[in-house]
Amino acid sequence: MNYLLGFLLFLSLFSISSAHEKFDSHLLPRPLILEYTETLETQLKQLDEDQQLRCTSWRFAVEANNLSPWKTIPSECVDYVKDYMMRKGYSVDLEMVYKEAGTYARSIELVGDGKDVWVFDVDETLLSNLPYYADHGYGLEVFDSHEFDKWVEKAIAPAIESSLKLYEEVQGLGFKVFLLTGRSERQRSVTVENLKNAGFQNWDKLVLRALEDHGKTATIYKSEKRSEMVNEGYRILGNSGDQWSDLLGSTVSKRSFKLPNPMYYIP
Amino acid sequence: MNYLLGFLLFLSLFSISSAHEKFDSHLLPRPLILEYTETLETQLKQLDEDQQLRCTSWRFAVEANNLSPWKTIPSECVDYVKDYMMRKGYSVDLEMVYKEAGTYARSIELVGDGKDVWVFDVDETLLSNLPYYADHGYGLEVFDSHEFDKWVEKAIAPAIESSLKLYEEVQGLGFKVFLLTGRSERQRSVTVENLKNAGFQNWDKLVLRALEDHGKTATIYKSEKRSEMVNEGYRILGNSGDQWSDLLGSTVSKRSFKLPNPMYYIP
Repeated sequence: MNYLLGFLLFLSLFSISSAHEKFDSHLLPRPLILEYTETLETQLKQLDEDQQLRCTSWRFAVEANNLSPWKTIPSECVDYVKDYMMRKGYSVDLEMVYKEAGTYARSIELVGDGKDVWVFDVDETLLSNLPYYADHGYGLEVFDSHEFDKWVEKAIAPAIESSLKLYEEVQGLGFKVFLLTGRSERQRSVTVENLKNAGFQNWDKLVLRALEDHGKTATIYKSEKRSEMVNEGYRILGNSGDQWSDLLGSTVSKRSFKLPNPMYYIP
Repeated sequence: MNYLLGFLLFLSLFSISSAHEKFDSHLLPRPLILEYTETLETQLKQLDEDQQLRCTSWRFAVEANNLSPWKTIPSECVDYVKDYMMRKGYSVDLEMVYKEAGTYARSIELVGDGKDVWVFDVDETLLSNLPYYADHGYGLEVFDSHEFDKWVEKAIAPAIESSLKLYEEVQGLGFKVFLLTGRSERQRSVTVENLKNAGFQNWDKLVLRALEDHGKTATIYKSEKRSEMVNEGYRILGNSGDQWSDLLGSTVSKRSFKLPNPMYYIP
């Protein structure tokens, strides 16, 4: 958008200067310049608004699970996604999901036999990789697993604060907390380290992808793992995840909570 | 919001006049007034932005299926929802869903045995009840089935244009088109009349709630009907609906498309 703006401003200089030349003899340059500037501003505002609408529409399509698998965000929406993630939009949305999930968690009566479970995904659910994505175009760059793994190894991803609140709240209510992540079993120790550094404590299970799970879609892998939990007698009452593949498939939770994530898609 | 604005402007008159009185002797009334006005404007803009963010967040929560059943839209979001429905937001979102659904429909190879099906919901999917809701607070009023039935009897709900395009496109591709609506069997003839008036033709099934379906949630009723279709040998490849209860449950479609609807919720 910045480029487009620049280009249009550049063009506008031409319109103004040529208009200027043409009407020079009439000695009316000032009102003319003002007029052109206003029209241009209106046009730019319109362009901005339309792009804003298209990017909002795209984000809705992501959150409503309407899109086919996508590899990168639309290039016209880079500034939009950056603005959403870095200013208030993302945190307001996270807070809204937290409130709904918390209200639900408090509303259900647990059996209390240690089999009531809340499942959490890890990346973009408990931990935020926003510092990584801020350095990689907020989803505009194609995912580079090698680069991302280097970031994971650092174990410095901060907590998503609203999720930490929910995590502690459901633990306090008596839920078992199971973490179900697409990360590899090889990353167990850095994941544990990172979770602890970020303030997460006393989870009851941390399930990572074993060798045989590689190559499975997240939907299949996570459905299988939830199914194993249920076969062990657990009741999955809540499930928080930023991807639809955390929430859909088989053996779905009684209620699921979709956290916002306009930066990437995992099938 | 208008009331709030009025109230704040009202308050601001007080602040200005009392500030005026206080500093009267200093002979600095003008800059003081300007200063207060600017601060007020900034504050009002901020309030507006925050409310906009909260209502956008609420709409996302609706579309991502994060909310418990709700009866009316939040009162602070009336202007927001009206603006969304009546200006560009809604139509841009509809167009986006249409594009995704169309691309998907064209991408799949049909068996061609007359068993490939696309399921459409009716209200807020094929037909728009926006004229009714515009007269009833865009979802702020609690749903009044008696009033709504009077509107349905008129059979004048316009087509949602993007859905009519998709409808005709999937028919052209060779899909059977099944309409699955929560409307009552008693409303069959007005529904047929309205659909035809709005330009919909040659559907292959129109399923309405029979006597025994009343009292079932839409999720249960529609799942049962989809299950009957599959038991008859049909393959449900696409499903378009504005409610999650059109799309979730059992025997779900290969792909589902959630049309936007921030005005009401059907469980």
